[in-house]
Amino acid sequence: MPKPQPNELFTALRAGDTVALSRAITLVESSRAEHRKQAEVLLQLCLPYAGRSFRIGITGVPGVGKSTLIEQLGLLAIAKDHSVAVLAVDPSSRKTGGSILGDKTRMEKLSVHPRAFIRPSAAGTTLGGVAGSTREAIILLEAAGYDLILVETVGVGQSETAVHSMTDLFLLLLLSGAGDELQGIKRGIMEMADIVAVNKADGDNVIRADQTRMDFKRALHLFPPPASGWTVPVLTCSALTGTGMEHLLEQIMDYRTFVNSNGFLERNRSRQLQYWFHESLQQQLMNQLTERFPDDVEAASQAVLEGRELPSAAIAALLNRLFSR
Amino acid sequence: MPKPQPNELFTALRAGDTVALSRAITLVESSRAEHRKQAEVLLQLCLPYAGRSFRIGITGVPGVGKSTLIEQLGLLAIAKDHSVAVLAVDPSSRKTGGSILGDKTRMEKLSVHPRAFIRPSAAGTTLGGVAGSTREAIILLEAAGYDLILVETVGVGQSETAVHSMTDLFLLLLLSGAGDELQGIKRGIMEMADIVAVNKADGDNVIRADQTRMDFKRALHLFPPPASGWTVPVLTCSALTGTGMEHLLEQIMDYRTFVNSNGFLERNRSRQLQYWFHESLQQQLMNQLTERFPDDVEAASQAVLEGRELPSAAIAALLNRLFSR
Repeated sequence: MPKPQPNELFTALRAGDTVALSRAITLVESSRAEHRKQAEVLLQLCLPYAGRSFRIGITGVPGVGKSTLIEQLGLLAIAKDHSVAVLAVDPSSRKTGGSILGDKTRMEKLSVHPRAFIRPSAAGTTLGGVAGSTREAIILLEAAGYDLILVETVGVGQSETAVHSMTDLFLLLLLSGAGDELQGIKRGIMEMADIVAVNKADGDNVIRADQTRMDFKRALHLFPPPASGWTVPVLTCSALTGTGMEHLLEQIMDYRTFVNSNGFLERNRSRQLQYWFHESLQQQLMNQLTERFPDDVEAASQAVLEGRELPSAAIAALLNRLFSR
Repeated sequence: MPKPQPNELFTALRAGDTVALSRAITLVESSRAEHRKQAEVLLQLCLPYAGRSFRIGITGVPGVGKSTLIEQLGLLAIAKDHSVAVLAVDPSSRKTGGSILGDKTRMEKLSVHPRAFIRPSAAGTTLGGVAGSTREAIILLEAAGYDLILVETVGVGQSETAVHSMTDLFLLLLLSGAGDELQGIKRGIMEMADIVAVNKADGDNVIRADQTRMDFKRALHLFPPPASGWTVPVLTCSALTGTGMEHLLEQIMDYRTFVNSNGFLERNRSRQLQYWFHESLQQQLMNQLTERFPDDVEAASQAVLEGRELPSAAIAALLNRLFSR
């Protein structure tokens, strides 16, 4: 069977064909030149539909129960007539095994629902590459009509900043316990959060979870507020029993209303687009340089690192070479 | 009188000639091509002496009493046989007036001490430019023999990240009060701090200052620790009365010993050098592009911002032009 053309993929995914949608995402993830050409034709067709979802980034310590919580959140949202897509950003993912099967079996109920779409992480060699294809996958999903897109980080300290820069709301999941709350969270993540949820507030953990909630509420109160003007709520919940999950979804929707009304969503998305453009441009410029003069770049870097040369001098020499054929 | 040659400036500043040192710093701040050439010759001579100081970044809310505190800290350090230099990073500074006179008159006692050197902010049009010349000024100061270099941020939310990336210790100054503590501090700065000091713990403010200290101590305890392994202390002090200032200096020295012993200082400086190289290279590449094709870059940026074009497509077109003369 011949491979579908970009415009055929576009028509099909717009009509709700999830096989076409999957193929489209695979296409934008590919780094092969002819695939990139086709991907750009497809994405250009989707561009007018971009921005039509609410994008939620979700991060948390390993073991916090992210998958279970995402599944519960997804099912609740679907019950309220949303259509939900779930993406993951995992720079270490490989096409053979790993998180791919893991994700699908962990979110069984959600993955079979007609109004849900779950996509394992793109296989990628660089965080920049994976972040780029995730942003493009978001455009495809928005053209396909999903109005809630959840992007989860995988692993610790790698992809939080990237996910934060492509989403409208950043949700931080915590555990409660004696000093375990932020085990494995990179410094600086706390202050990116728009909502904080202490998970596993069930069984004999209920009281401790509430204590953790109060501790973090108090701590956050001392810190500068988000630029959006929103007051960051700290909640408890249990993805297992369902406690607090409706409330979490309500807070998410309240936030969406809040940042839509005060124009922050709009401004933030502008800023994020500029950032994407700027980052991509810098990345491509750097690629051009290292492709053409790999040894020179490496040598310059070494000379600077070893204190033998100034950055400005090393760079001037490099650029001289690049621009004076 | 003819302008001194780079090697003359070098010999003079090594010998303790502060007029030569001032001229040297002015030279590295200049963006004129022939100055840049001379600056690089001079800095190359200084490179073997780079790294010989302990570099402290200092930030705080407006009105926190930064200048008074820096002066007191400087005088205490000098009393313990250190030689102290003070720099400021202020991207909005202009050569005519502004912070230049202000700084010198606010640190009167320190500025006249033979073992102190105070330099107002470089005038610069971009933060990148000012950060670059500050880093180079640090090299000159280290060649001149200053063993403690304090770099203060000016203004709010602009230069903290830059200062953090060029110093070994980041000191955050706070006020105490009803919710004023972090007024004007950008989100994310709190988690950069290695030491937090609540200033103006004097008069009827003593009790409130101590309450603030305890609140922040508790909050920080919840958050991920610094990569250095150091436990961030929260202290109170009064630059006015001198209370707690010796203790603050001790904590600074303890931190220096700590990160020297466990190798973190070394690793961190390596990372900072790489960052400086990488950032400068990206900046220069970008400059080359915008110099040669200013309208194209602007048009591409606009097309992306208005949702008419994908970043990857816009950039591919741009780079095609740049690299295929």
